[in-house]
Amino acid sequence: MPRIMPFKGETMQKTIYLDNSATTPVFEVVALHMLDAMQNCYFNPSAAYGPAVKVERELQACRETLRKAAGAQGYEVIFTSGGTEANNLAILGVLERQRLLGTCCFSAVEHPAVREPMRAAEGLGHQVRMLPVDAQGVLDLERCAAMLDAGVSLISCMHVCNETGAVQPIEALAALRNQRCPSALLHVDGVQGFLRAPLSVGRIGVDLYTISGHKIHGPKGIGALLARKGIKLHPQLLGGGQEGGLRSGTENVPGILGLQTAAETLRAMPDLDQTLRSNKMRLLHRVMAGEPQTKINGPDPESPQAAPHILNLSLPGVRGEVLLHALEAVGVYVSTGSACSARKQRHGPALEAMGITGDRLEGAIRISLSPLNTSEEMGLAADAILAAHAQLKGFKRR
Amino acid sequence: MPRIMPFKGETMQKTIYLDNSATTPVFEVVALHMLDAMQNCYFNPSAAYGPAVKVERELQACRETLRKAAGAQGYEVIFTSGGTEANNLAILGVLERQRLLGTCCFSAVEHPAVREPMRAAEGLGHQVRMLPVDAQGVLDLERCAAMLDAGVSLISCMHVCNETGAVQPIEALAALRNQRCPSALLHVDGVQGFLRAPLSVGRIGVDLYTISGHKIHGPKGIGALLARKGIKLHPQLLGGGQEGGLRSGTENVPGILGLQTAAETLRAMPDLDQTLRSNKMRLLHRVMAGEPQTKINGPDPESPQAAPHILNLSLPGVRGEVLLHALEAVGVYVSTGSACSARKQRHGPALEAMGITGDRLEGAIRISLSPLNTSEEMGLAADAILAAHAQLKGFKRR
Repeated sequence: MPRIMPFKGETMQKTIYLDNSATTPVFEVVALHMLDAMQNCYFNPSAAYGPAVKVERELQACRETLRKAAGAQGYEVIFTSGGTEANNLAILGVLERQRLLGTCCFSAVEHPAVREPMRAAEGLGHQVRMLPVDAQGVLDLERCAAMLDAGVSLISCMHVCNETGAVQPIEALAALRNQRCPSALLHVDGVQGFLRAPLSVGRIGVDLYTISGHKIHGPKGIGALLARKGIKLHPQLLGGGQEGGLRSGTENVPGILGLQTAAETLRAMPDLDQTLRSNKMRLLHRVMAGEPQTKINGPDPESPQAAPHILNLSLPGVRGEVLLHALEAVGVYVSTGSACSARKQRHGPALEAMGITGDRLEGAIRISLSPLNTSEEMGLAADAILAAHAQLKGFKRR
Repeated sequence: MPRIMPFKGETMQKTIYLDNSATTPVFEVVALHMLDAMQNCYFNPSAAYGPAVKVERELQACRETLRKAAGAQGYEVIFTSGGTEANNLAILGVLERQRLLGTCCFSAVEHPAVREPMRAAEGLGHQVRMLPVDAQGVLDLERCAAMLDAGVSLISCMHVCNETGAVQPIEALAALRNQRCPSALLHVDGVQGFLRAPLSVGRIGVDLYTISGHKIHGPKGIGALLARKGIKLHPQLLGGGQEGGLRSGTENVPGILGLQTAAETLRAMPDLDQTLRSNKMRLLHRVMAGEPQTKINGPDPESPQAAPHILNLSLPGVRGEVLLHALEAVGVYVSTGSACSARKQRHGPALEAMGITGDRLEGAIRISLSPLNTSEEMGLAADAILAAHAQLKGFKRR
């Protein structure tokens, strides 16, 4: 039996990790499955001999797991290097196949992995429209309706907002699409929602759905795009023609197996939604009891419009960034916005799109939970937040 | 201590794996380092708190390892999902930044991950020229010279041919470039050559160099593009702006650390070249002794034009595909061509570009070694090849 070596000679302090929307620790069962796959199942699935063909069959089973988990029976599953690549493939892959330049719509709270391909689409001559959200960060369907006309060819809306936890009304958006621009394709970035907010991709009529491994306790460097059968995509990576010609490059077999194991593990967790919600509410109630002026940025956390695992709060009089570093000092990790841009800007586009400004905007912190967090951690984290906040407020007053 | 579970309840038979140009088993030290990173070093390097910043610093160290290993001091290191993505970024990333449509040249033996982006470049209006190879599969510099004129803006040539093991004369090609089209950029696909054939990227003046993790006993799903400082690339994946804006998507931290460990491990192996060469020659001599009509497809295996680890042979009167499956039955794994296309076509473009046709073409098998192969395996594999060949030839005659 190999010994697991400490990471570069360091040991990690005991931490309370509440930044699961940035990335999640892999489930132990995922890591072990990958370790085994790396050592014993390393064959190139494109090779001609039996063990390689068996690996290829394993990949088919992984596709089926994702289809089932997303309610996407019969969909194509294209493995990618992650959510960003899947979003790029969905948006640019669709647009590069279109003969006519259509209008592209995306919500005002989308992640850069959707916004930037949309900006590129604009550069290619497509008209681009940003769909508004309400003060809770939820898509404003009434105002959207006026913006969806027959010229729209692609709509992209995230499943759950990475900044606020708002669950977007995808079913209603799909119905609106059917009514106002039935030929438009609907892409949903499911990176933050997959397996944590219910969505039946096939039943609702989502055409393209993005999945990321490392947001569901699977490995980094793996994701998938689920595409309704018959949708024509232009590949974004050219080469050996893997993934039905849609995504070239040797398949990341251990990554794919890890993603499958993560999805299966998360799906099999009893009361996942209830556990996450009750932990979230426990933390929130304790913070609110200690600092009643705390503002919630996003939907009512007890409503179905709020994802079970994400909470965006503004405590009065202290900048989120400062609070983050004070919490870090006691081993509690939160963020101020979306991780991909955390060190470049203090927050993503969501809060401003909701009309939040000034101290409340500057004061925002995002707390994102996972099933690996315990109920006990919620109390400890809330106390740490209150203590840091009280201390920092005090500094400010002096 | 976690127990390492058998892969999906199966055990693997004892095998002799001679398809290391398709993919390699990860070094144990790589797998264990990745396992540890997945569990303890999972932070998103874009997050603002200390442990994430430390991960970001680890990534800088990984870049430095690759620079040193490739002799590319001062080069940018852009991590990608693998060799295919790095090749796409190099070729399309360069061309999309060019204001004028230049001529693109690539060797006749390139991998589809170079050929297909070149075909796309042609679709964008670039003129494309295929550089010829000689009967040994080595770039024919005399004929190339006439094709390289001042209108050439990009040249792509692989370091080592995946099919034949031919080491391309990159230094001479770079000199030719300097002489005939000094403004042209030189891209080298180093997937098969990195750390197995000497090449000092910076000294020679290679502008862009592609590395793949899973061909050097590192993980699948990770690679890198080394780019000379100052070279402007257009990103191929858009989003959060990671990798200096050149490659968005959360960094595959365990994959990157695994790639680093693999490169360090391979680099530290004493007598790697000599071990691979002597194993290769042992296998070859034994096959030749048993079947003297065996033809070598590629450069003289003892010459410096031959990579130490790849051998392409045609045994008379038996199709490569049939021999492959007969060898598989006794646990010896070889291929008939490049793995990425193995089940789609019997061989890649190299042998035909060398003028090999008919039975010799159909009979080709590729044997590719790694330092994990033993000298003993060479004898066993040669005997297996001879036995299978004798039996199959016999069947044919009846």
